[in-house]
Amino acid sequence: MSFIADLCNRVTPPTARWLTLAREKQLALTKPPGSLGVLELTGNRLASIFKTTDFPPFSKLIYVVAGDHGVTAEGVSAYPSEVTSQMVLNFLSGGAAINVIARHCGIDLLIVDAGVAAELPDHPNLLREKIVYGTANFLKGSALTRQQAEKSVLVGIGLAQRASLKGVNLLGIGDMGIGNTTISSAITAVVTGEPVSNVTGHGSGLDDGRLSHKIKVIERAIYRNNPDPTNALDVLAKVGGVEIGIMTGIVIGAAVEGLAVFSDGFITTAAAALATMLCPAAKEYLFLSHLSPEPGHAALVQFLGLQPTLNLDMRLGEGTGAALAMHQAEVAAKILSEMATFESAGISNKNQSFRQ
Amino acid sequence: MSFIADLCNRVTPPTARWLTLAREKQLALTKPPGSLGVLELTGNRLASIFKTTDFPPFSKLIYVVAGDHGVTAEGVSAYPSEVTSQMVLNFLSGGAAINVIARHCGIDLLIVDAGVAAELPDHPNLLREKIVYGTANFLKGSALTRQQAEKSVLVGIGLAQRASLKGVNLLGIGDMGIGNTTISSAITAVVTGEPVSNVTGHGSGLDDGRLSHKIKVIERAIYRNNPDPTNALDVLAKVGGVEIGIMTGIVIGAAVEGLAVFSDGFITTAAAALATMLCPAAKEYLFLSHLSPEPGHAALVQFLGLQPTLNLDMRLGEGTGAALAMHQAEVAAKILSEMATFESAGISNKNQSFRQ
Repeated sequence: MSFIADLCNRVTPPTARWLTLAREKQLALTKPPGSLGVLELTGNRLASIFKTTDFPPFSKLIYVVAGDHGVTAEGVSAYPSEVTSQMVLNFLSGGAAINVIARHCGIDLLIVDAGVAAELPDHPNLLREKIVYGTANFLKGSALTRQQAEKSVLVGIGLAQRASLKGVNLLGIGDMGIGNTTISSAITAVVTGEPVSNVTGHGSGLDDGRLSHKIKVIERAIYRNNPDPTNALDVLAKVGGVEIGIMTGIVIGAAVEGLAVFSDGFITTAAAALATMLCPAAKEYLFLSHLSPEPGHAALVQFLGLQPTLNLDMRLGEGTGAALAMHQAEVAAKILSEMATFESAGISNKNQSFRQ
Repeated sequence: MSFIADLCNRVTPPTARWLTLAREKQLALTKPPGSLGVLELTGNRLASIFKTTDFPPFSKLIYVVAGDHGVTAEGVSAYPSEVTSQMVLNFLSGGAAINVIARHCGIDLLIVDAGVAAELPDHPNLLREKIVYGTANFLKGSALTRQQAEKSVLVGIGLAQRASLKGVNLLGIGDMGIGNTTISSAITAVVTGEPVSNVTGHGSGLDDGRLSHKIKVIERAIYRNNPDPTNALDVLAKVGGVEIGIMTGIVIGAAVEGLAVFSDGFITTAAAALATMLCPAAKEYLFLSHLSPEPGHAALVQFLGLQPTLNLDMRLGEGTGAALAMHQAEVAAKILSEMATFESAGISNKNQSFRQ
């Protein structure tokens, strides 16, 4: 814990200098001021993170982190638990949605076994970081020990450092874990103070009857475990899961390394929220990708005070939204790097006589 | 006119068969039903247009169509009129925002001189289709003759046919023309029946005083010309401009050729609205890319009854939003083409016992 806290204390937010320089450069480029909207804001943030407005080609990586959850024994998910390991195999053979989108957007993928409740075969794209064979059922007690929770965060920090060493600039996170909308709703209720019923949704496709059941399970589990809402590691240990802990660590590690890090939907944003509780400065390196229709996501977005840039009614996870946002961020950077200026292109700027 | 009407009558909407087959295939792919949201809806529409769920690699082209407007003499724009030709040169030398975004998204660009008020140099990416050296000032009378308006639509239809012959699948439109938000606000007010003040905005950056003036100019020009709101060619002739007419033709021509066609922001959507007035079935081939903050755009979106998929506060034009939406559409198609099915990947489907 003190290692995590020490590391977090060493993260500094980007200075304002490159943000200012980027804003000035935007005004010189051949477009009306502000006319590229979100792309300009994203580009300016990237400039402040990478301390340049003339970006090198970006190397992009998404870690898809997988884990199982004991609470699936309570029937809180539309899919059986074994789908987690089956989907990991699907990621490894290239057939999942994230494979398709990452290929199209030129993003590398690595799959992380954080806590899948099955043995997985060797594969060059599978990183073996298994901390548990599925978490304990948090309706019956703590999902993880405090040590397991801390270990998951440390593993995540290490994964971000590994990515940085390999030259990655844009780092995305994606999740796979049957039952993890239940876990994320619990985290969201605890850290935002919202009632469980406001932040719990249909997940991968529960019907209304099962949704009421899911809400009751989460309420009882929170009551039983009584996590401290101001202590991210206590929340992580009592609620779970290890994939969320590893993603929490990846967000922190990205900030340590000075990388831009992209959350995906509800589950990854729950991890990002825990990361900013441990390391407030990490928020400066974090980009929210898309708004999920899962009701808890909006509460987390408000908690973080950042804006997702896409709203595509997507609720798959796996990093699918992160991939799209990372592609968009790359466009935003290239706008700053590659566009001509009014001066270089010999173009008349805004007619001063028309200005107030 | 009768040629345009005959051609429009021959456009048939895609049949429901491939829409149904695409929806069925989506359910078989390894993701919860509907979990890719807008990407699924886009993919299904592409399947109905191209009559397949196993798409070949797409060839993508954006026509950026440029023209000048006599009404700029009234001081309705933040930039001087010569910026239109200067920006065409910027497009040809690769320094504009659309060049950067199109390169990143693998989209070809061709620039069309529809009615730039200057001589332009020869360039392999410049298509010379100049109909006028700038339109007439519609505050003083009709912007174009009826013959010029019809010619612009015919040129656009020809450009779509040319793209189709070259193997293009996804066709985008982008605009360049100082003064053309004024023209688009006039078109929008006429065809939607909204008050001019509701559908007129700051364009490329007018201050509030100039905005009131712009609104008055549009109101007076509409009063003077009295365009028939049910007759797209009458509106086009009286209001202008030739770049809008050519883009109207491109949308119609794309439907004739069975291509998917992507509007950009406010100006291109005004052209698309005129296209669907001439050719209602063209709407089935049309994708709205992004929502512009220009107030008239929302009125056109409602008029068309289609949903833009991006909301990035962009108001540049040039096809910048179309390019992003075309990239997203390509992702949507690849989801249908490339994802594994539950059966092929050996993955347990939704647990039937949890369903109602």
